[in-house]
Amino acid sequence: MSSLRNRQWLLARRPTGVVSEADFKWNEADVPEPGEGQVLVRTLCLSCDPTQRGWMSMDTYLPKVELGEVMRSSGAGRVVASRHPAFAEGQLVQGLLGWQDYAVVTAGKPGALMPLPPGVPIETALGALGITGITAYFGLLDVGKAKAGETVVVSGAAGATGSMVAQIAKILGCRVVGIAGGADKCRYLVGELGLDAAIDYKGEDVAARLGETCPKGIDVYFDNVGGEILDAALAKLAMRGRVVLCGAISRYSDAAPGPGPKNYMNLLLKRGRMEGFIVLDYFPRVAEAILPMAGWLAQGKLKDRVDVQVGLERAPAALARLFTGQNEGKQLVRVAE
Amino acid sequence: MSSLRNRQWLLARRPTGVVSEADFKWNEADVPEPGEGQVLVRTLCLSCDPTQRGWMSMDTYLPKVELGEVMRSSGAGRVVASRHPAFAEGQLVQGLLGWQDYAVVTAGKPGALMPLPPGVPIETALGALGITGITAYFGLLDVGKAKAGETVVVSGAAGATGSMVAQIAKILGCRVVGIAGGADKCRYLVGELGLDAAIDYKGEDVAARLGETCPKGIDVYFDNVGGEILDAALAKLAMRGRVVLCGAISRYSDAAPGPGPKNYMNLLLKRGRMEGFIVLDYFPRVAEAILPMAGWLAQGKLKDRVDVQVGLERAPAALARLFTGQNEGKQLVRVAE
Repeated sequence: MSSLRNRQWLLARRPTGVVSEADFKWNEADVPEPGEGQVLVRTLCLSCDPTQRGWMSMDTYLPKVELGEVMRSSGAGRVVASRHPAFAEGQLVQGLLGWQDYAVVTAGKPGALMPLPPGVPIETALGALGITGITAYFGLLDVGKAKAGETVVVSGAAGATGSMVAQIAKILGCRVVGIAGGADKCRYLVGELGLDAAIDYKGEDVAARLGETCPKGIDVYFDNVGGEILDAALAKLAMRGRVVLCGAISRYSDAAPGPGPKNYMNLLLKRGRMEGFIVLDYFPRVAEAILPMAGWLAQGKLKDRVDVQVGLERAPAALARLFTGQNEGKQLVRVAE
Repeated sequence: MSSLRNRQWLLARRPTGVVSEADFKWNEADVPEPGEGQVLVRTLCLSCDPTQRGWMSMDTYLPKVELGEVMRSSGAGRVVASRHPAFAEGQLVQGLLGWQDYAVVTAGKPGALMPLPPGVPIETALGALGITGITAYFGLLDVGKAKAGETVVVSGAAGATGSMVAQIAKILGCRVVGIAGGADKCRYLVGELGLDAAIDYKGEDVAARLGETCPKGIDVYFDNVGGEILDAALAKLAMRGRVVLCGAISRYSDAAPGPGPKNYMNLLLKRGRMEGFIVLDYFPRVAEAILPMAGWLAQGKLKDRVDVQVGLERAPAALARLFTGQNEGKQLVRVAE
């Protein structure tokens, strides 16, 4: 292995504001040998996720990335060498590979390294049938308990997770309203994904439009953004409405936590519930989500839009696209073919 | 009836800030005759509840009290005349009697008028075995799902509902920390009610003291107050912690909603849940709460402290005591013997 070079992005500093390339340092190292129980993986494709911004700054549900460490990222790759009985050379896998060409992963812990579903393109395996799809599925159904006929509102609806949530809700028979930034994204949501309505938070009054588009109130609000949009949704909660906290991308770049949702007391008046979840907890139940999702994909009921940037060099810029709203669907970085 | 005078407090204006006597107008009217299906009740005792402040200002889970209407209040009384088959003259009842000597109540709707439990003092029937106790019981167990061994934190812990919640949690085998205003109330919580710890929010750093007294984090936070104390509790939530929204007395006197809880994102990191409830929804299940509560009272495990002001004239002042923290336990107004 030592003849191969391992190109990497290391975390250089704790970011302030929106993440940028200057927060990272390019590095080239030797490719390490896998130890007992470890697997050496060639990275093929990296997933960009809003949660990475949190990992750069502070301990969350995972410890923060230390300065000088390879930037943490989930991704898919091919096994180059394995010293773990469950993985064989040549196999396609996914896990926390990091921003690097080669990763040594200690397999065996739940979720550390998982085989890719057979016959599925890598982009789909990282998106609709990967953590994104699993997040959407369990968040909407297990946490939000959405049911046919209910009104579901999704923020970040043109993003990776949001677009899956919106489509699953439509498949279930819900009335679905998506919130996204810009007229193009809104046209996509209604025209391509078949949502009942879309709200452009950059050009429209979200509170007023929620009132128009959700005449019976909001039964499930799936929140990817936090901030004022969360507050507007809380104000329109239906009786026994549920708020699913999946993320708060509008807040991740703030140095200190911004104001909380002042309308939270509507949870009391409406006997509502606001609940957070982390997809890691659902890894033991992944098959529950993957099987129906794969079926809907095959039937064309679920559309999987990916936004691929090419080259490991572009990883920082690709991550930044999430926070400026440039990405259209699941943001990926193709590292090797 | 027309020879009897009905003394009343009418709502005179929408209050700004803490409620005061100037928000009401004293009135004397004839006692009305009950119509078909109605019951005439002589008010004996009125319950003062934080939720009344909301009723004065805005539509909540009940329509707001109109200007010129008798101030809404729950209370207990004796049936003077009945034109409803379920109620007989002389019977003791409770319901929304309002701030007046005599109330005509349309019986039959769930919760409108209920017989008092036999053999129970009126003060207890309005407190531990009334809406206060029912609120505490279902909020802690049905919404909060508190279990033996868990850490329960209660704000407004020396108040009517809070002191019930804290004691029920102790009976269940929880570690219980109460938050209250002033050293006297804190001494009462630990010395008389047997809580594991008490925090004086007026004299201590609530966040720091929560850290000390809840080393494993907070499994259930029962919130009666909102504001900064809610935020401090969210920051200390244990994994899968629950926040029960029962009230927000610190906010009720504000003209506009204050800032929301900025630490709400801890619900996501800790897979937590924040849920509101209204006790009215539990009226069909009242017996579930009353039976164990009555048993605990009889065994002396549950202490019921009441703070009685005497005379209908004192109703506005008694209500204001809730918002200045003067009340010690359940605030009542004795109207007649």
